[in-house]
Amino acid sequence: MSRAEAFSDGIFAIAATLLVLDLGVPRPDPTLLDGFLHEWPAYAAYATSFLTIGIIWVNHHAVLERLERVDRGLLFLNVVFLLFVALIPFPTKVVAHYLQSGGDYAHVAAAAYGVAMILMGIAFSVLNYYASARGLIKAQRRLGFWTQVRYSIGLLMYVVGTGLSFVDARIALIIYAGMALYYVVEPLTASEPSAH
Amino acid sequence: MSRAEAFSDGIFAIAATLLVLDLGVPRPDPTLLDGFLHEWPAYAAYATSFLTIGIIWVNHHAVLERLERVDRGLLFLNVVFLLFVALIPFPTKVVAHYLQSGGDYAHVAAAAYGVAMILMGIAFSVLNYYASARGLIKAQRRLGFWTQVRYSIGLLMYVVGTGLSFVDARIALIIYAGMALYYVVEPLTASEPSAH
Amino acid sequence: MSRAEAFSDGIFAIAATLLVLDLGVPRPDPTLLDGFLHEWPAYAAYATSFLTIGIIWVNHHAVLERLERVDRGLLFLNVVFLLFVALIPFPTKVVAHYLQSGGDYAHVAAAAYGVAMILMGIAFSVLNYYASARGLIKAQRRLGFWTQVRYSIGLLMYVVGTGLSFVDARIALIIYAGMALYYVVEPLTASEPSAH
Amino acid sequence: MSRAEAFSDGIFAIAATLLVLDLGVPRPDPTLLDGFLHEWPAYAAYATSFLTIGIIWVNHHAVLERLERVDRGLLFLNVVFLLFVALIPFPTKVVAHYLQSGGDYAHVAAAAYGVAMILMGIAFSVLNYYASARGLIKAQRRLGFWTQVRYSIGLLMYVVGTGLSFVDARIALIIYAGMALYYVVEPLTASEPSAH
Repeated sequence: MSRAEAFSDGIFAIAATLLVLDLGVPRPDPTLLDGFLHEWPAYAAYATSFLTIGIIWVNHHAVLERLERVDRGLLFLNVVFLLFVALIPFPTKVVAHYLQSGGDYAHVAAAAYGVAMILMGIAFSVLNYYASARGLIKAQRRLGFWTQVRYSIGLLMYVVGTGLSFVDARIALIIYAGMALYYVVEPLTASEPSAH
Repeated sequence: MSRAEAFSDGIFAIAATLLVLDLGVPRPDPTLLDGFLHEWPAYAAYATSFLTIGIIWVNHHAVLERLERVDRGLLFLNVVFLLFVALIPFPTKVVAHYLQSGGDYAHVAAAAYGVAMILMGIAFSVLNYYASARGLIKAQRRLGFWTQVRYSIGLLMYVVGTGLSFVDARIALIIYAGMALYYVVEPLTASEPSAH
Repeated sequence: MSRAEAFSDGIFAIAATLLVLDLGVPRPDPTLLDGFLHEWPAYAAYATSFLTIGIIWVNHHAVLERLERVDRGLLFLNVVFLLFVALIPFPTKVVAHYLQSGGDYAHVAAAAYGVAMILMGIAFSVLNYYASARGLIKAQRRLGFWTQVRYSIGLLMYVVGTGLSFVDARIALIIYAGMALYYVVEPLTASEPSAH
Repeated sequence: MSRAEAFSDGIFAIAATLLVLDLGVPRPDPTLLDGFLHEWPAYAAYATSFLTIGIIWVNHHAVLERLERVDRGLLFLNVVFLLFVALIPFPTKVVAHYLQSGGDYAHVAAAAYGVAMILMGIAFSVLNYYASARGLIKAQRRLGFWTQVRYSIGLLMYVVGTGLSFVDARIALIIYAGMALYYVVEPLTASEPSAH
């Protein structure tokens, strides 16, 4: 199982770090500072996707450490899940591109981002379901009801965001970014740190 | 041996994640949704190669954990094998490019993909053979006859696919993609999960 | 905690290695040797950022190994910190680009490099502060006063460098490069090697 | 020390895998097969550099596992060494580019490749020397005389190759490729596998 973790961590870390490749050298417009400011969608997309990958990594970790054993089916479902994690830099650059160039295309781009996240969320749910159904999880470590609700809310928010893309792309993106921020900031405010 | 695994896992994870770099921002054609749809060969190639790398990773894992010890020869044969694993993003982008632009070049591109996989399969077989011949494998962990047949069938299918490339490039690609799907889905249907 | 280390190490290693992608094939100008020489800012930026990432990696290591336990808040603050580590290739290529093309833009580029480093330093300080405030650190392993001063001086030097960017971009870059060299060379001259 | 290994392995694996990014989609010239054949310098450079990184990885491994403990100086010298390992994709693409476009520039490109390897070899020697001088090596695990000679011959061959670049670039490249092949093939022919 440690090797499944190493492979997964590698994919998470690489997908997150590759995001930087889509930040191009800004052109003076007219000053270089303006050039930086005009590219804000790229920076917002970078931060949102990086934090999102970080959050998925923490959640994925929580699932893997709950496993008593791993079978070939779980290894392959994990590969399918990672296929969608590794994909994240793609919708990220599509959104950054069309948000910057403006126009109607931003609607479809924001929806594509949401769809990619929904597919990843579904793959994650299938992975969880399979682990339960096959009895691979330590008896005393079943996912609590509220944790499952938390995961489902995440998935639901991406569905809402994808739907709202066609009303206003910016609302969708604020939802995606807001979720990333919420999941990062919320544990910091917990009065009692959760043991790990 | 754990360090050979770490290095191998790194190569597998990076090669798989680099595949995303070849997914470019689609152009509206005329709508952005059409733009996405026209690039389906790139997405099919991404998914096929990602799953293929995942499958090879699982099989490679099964071989390494069978080893009792490692010698310098095995380390270097492993490097040669990884040279072909790390190469996969290259035939992937060639196939995606020529499948999209259409024309006769797709034949050679599909054949090149098959040849890259055959070379990797041969390197993997040499690695296995060397480990057996040098007595590096735990006595009770020899590869079963059927596992060896499974590996050989995989290699054979790539030979068939490469040959069929010159008849119809799409048949070759369906074979490559079908194999990746088969190896991922088959363990999920096993009535008895294999211990790991 | 070992998994937080693996993820962090992955980000550090990838961010450092991606720096090489911004070294382009030099053009003969008129000889190829001249072509190499004209691109010195790219090589200086590569070396400075690579060493800087290496130094941060060593310091980050020193903090993580001091932890008794990890909570979700720390994991997420670590992700935020890594967001800035993974960003380093971006200001690096901006500085290399505008230092080479010359002109006034190098001022802003050098300042942007400093700001990126300051943000990373702040994220690192928050991580440290949180670990102390939550009591996550082993009692006998509190950061010594002088180590904290060392970290603060590093952050302060980036503030100074950023300010001096607007006087002369080259002074700022000499400060950044000088700090990287100082932190690498200084431990080599220690008469007594520090246990690890 | 395990974390220095993880970081080093990450750099080795990423540098090796990034080499594939410089293999571009070949153009039909007039057939696609010709297109592939015309790009042979890129494939030769890929294979040579990949195997070279693999060999350095094995040798570096042999040094690290000999260490009893690590101090900050060694960590930083290791970072300097890794700076040159991570650089390898750069001279690789320069050589591939100028070998393909032909002309006199291949001389300087081949020399640049050799210089990069020499700098890496020197950094590796300094690392080894420092580890000995500081008494960081397990008493019973000192590097044997012949292993040191082996390392020195490797460095010497790069000096010879760099010098010969100015006579004929192809001779230099045959030396680089031949060394990579020799170090990979030689252990396979050993009658007695070395324990590991």
